[in-house]
Amino acid sequence: MTYDGAKKGAKGKTMRRIAILAEGQFTMHGAKTALGVLRFSPDQTVAVIDSTRAGGDVAAALGLPNVGVGVPVVAGIEQALALRPTDLLIGIAPIGGKLPEDWRPILLTALAAKLNVISGLHVFLDDDAELHAAAVASGATIWDVRRPRPEYAQRIGEGAAHRAGSHTVYFAGSDCDVGKMTGALTLNQAALARGWRTAFAATGQTGIMITGEGVPTDRIISDFVNGAVEKLVLDLTEQYDWVFVEGQGTLCHPAYSAVTLGLVHGARPDMQILCHEAGRTHIYRYDAIPLPTLAQLVTMYETAAAWLHPAPVVGIALNTAYLDEDAARAAVAAATAETGLPATDPVRFGPDPLLAALERFVA
Amino acid sequence: MTYDGAKKGAKGKTMRRIAILAEGQFTMHGAKTALGVLRFSPDQTVAVIDSTRAGGDVAAALGLPNVGVGVPVVAGIEQALALRPTDLLIGIAPIGGKLPEDWRPILLTALAAKLNVISGLHVFLDDDAELHAAAVASGATIWDVRRPRPEYAQRIGEGAAHRAGSHTVYFAGSDCDVGKMTGALTLNQAALARGWRTAFAATGQTGIMITGEGVPTDRIISDFVNGAVEKLVLDLTEQYDWVFVEGQGTLCHPAYSAVTLGLVHGARPDMQILCHEAGRTHIYRYDAIPLPTLAQLVTMYETAAAWLHPAPVVGIALNTAYLDEDAARAAVAAATAETGLPATDPVRFGPDPLLAALERFVA
Repeated sequence: MTYDGAKKGAKGKTMRRIAILAEGQFTMHGAKTALGVLRFSPDQTVAVIDSTRAGGDVAAALGLPNVGVGVPVVAGIEQALALRPTDLLIGIAPIGGKLPEDWRPILLTALAAKLNVISGLHVFLDDDAELHAAAVASGATIWDVRRPRPEYAQRIGEGAAHRAGSHTVYFAGSDCDVGKMTGALTLNQAALARGWRTAFAATGQTGIMITGEGVPTDRIISDFVNGAVEKLVLDLTEQYDWVFVEGQGTLCHPAYSAVTLGLVHGARPDMQILCHEAGRTHIYRYDAIPLPTLAQLVTMYETAAAWLHPAPVVGIALNTAYLDEDAARAAVAAATAETGLPATDPVRFGPDPLLAALERFVA
Repeated sequence: MTYDGAKKGAKGKTMRRIAILAEGQFTMHGAKTALGVLRFSPDQTVAVIDSTRAGGDVAAALGLPNVGVGVPVVAGIEQALALRPTDLLIGIAPIGGKLPEDWRPILLTALAAKLNVISGLHVFLDDDAELHAAAVASGATIWDVRRPRPEYAQRIGEGAAHRAGSHTVYFAGSDCDVGKMTGALTLNQAALARGWRTAFAATGQTGIMITGEGVPTDRIISDFVNGAVEKLVLDLTEQYDWVFVEGQGTLCHPAYSAVTLGLVHGARPDMQILCHEAGRTHIYRYDAIPLPTLAQLVTMYETAAAWLHPAPVVGIALNTAYLDEDAARAAVAAATAETGLPATDPVRFGPDPLLAALERFVA
């Protein structure tokens, strides 16, 4: 049985109690889905499963003082079940998205215990006969987050203008896994706290797990990428004054540039914030391909957006998680010196310079 | 039953005898698949079905002196069956790709008569229970051309360099339906006649129908567009000195830009030829969106390609089919004046200036 994530958890009455499967990969880079859910989901995480790091809590395992304090890292599904979870969430995003076969017994154990399974893999678990049967047998549900809803699956882009007075911001990436979603969610939280009427537009599986809705952009048939994202953003601009659109990949990515350009054009932003992990020099997992400079990336995104609708880059969101405090401040200063744009690490130093840049732009 | 198009017709022993379904739409713009097959397929077309234009031959219906002379346009499937076709090819590409329900009885009649059905629609006819059962009952096959082969369906792009000494040419479009496939196939034929070791890389359903293989780019899940096209082109560069890659859409298209950038980056061309329909001023079916100038399009494609690998535009292929002779010559001259690049209508005036431009570039 497939269920609609928007009806539960994030948006609904029933708070989930989540166990996150991150076997063998619960590190900062390996578990970006886990980390996103731990940081931003309104649901409660009761355990992370990784036998190679079991024993302490999440904060200790990741070396992050503010995330997952007191949430145990446990050795297996049996230990997790003792903490009475309602859902097992697959918290790892292997490249290519396939299901490792050694996870199958874990999933079968979870489903037999009536845990719902939440998966962002490219392969749909509910289409697997054995897993589907196990879910039916226990009454559990399988939510394949990357399965597009019907209204997004085959929609043709229209190039439609947004509601006058609404402002759409695209969080453009220098690469995969640099902090685009984190930047957009952090700015969204801060803007809401200031009383702005903002919404976060989720465009990837982790964002959808957190908010309960969105477009699994990289799973959409390419002909319909622009159209699906356009509908998501258009609908939000009707209800909100600001829409913060999570970016994906980068325009110069050898594998994912199609996804990125479809997002930029479908979202039709009015302005952009460039997101980058300080110190990264090459495309992640493509060691032969150097990243452009920040200034080149600004030009790249402004050029591509303007093919349909101009969207200046108004600020830089740096992820400095791998730097010490002094190096982080130096990286922020260097980004501003290079581009002439306000910069910050929105998580470490707060998002105020970027919110101020957005306000100045529309003033 | 699904069959592999590469095993029959274009590449194989059995020549198909094709009836093309183009009901209500057998015009230059409406029937681009039909026209492509009529012009370039090694299979024999025995009839075109369009009750609104029945009576004469294809050449008369389209006003083209050199295409489809003597091939009758007939009123229905029954008249077509009298001409003993082996295959019914759906020769119309409706936007969105859905199956019009009034075609269903036509398809059932064809399948009952043991005609194989060839379809490039987004919806897979072999997944339709009634059509599938009809095919099984008669022993006919349904070839859903847009169903990606397994090796293309979920391949991640690698950004791999091509064999040294091979040359890949991307046929870049100003828009949909401007003559990218026709340009690439025309140059490929002419180059083969000169003894070049060239291959045409089909990236859309019509090209695949003609050659029997290729990547249905716009049907690939967006995460895998670059990777699928990369494999197609890489494999061809191993065997051929020149690979002419059919382009799709345009980089500034509100609906299809994701497809286009994935193609440009996946194909990793060394040079490009810009294809344009002379006189077109706006994106086809998007009357509010003006086309960039030719000079702007040259810059756009060179910029996007260079994000991964530089690929100068070395010539312009103009489609002047809607102009008289004088206007066509003037359009060609104007294209050269504007861009400083050699230009021709490769169908009307021959492809020599473009082949010469390719030779100069690699000399």
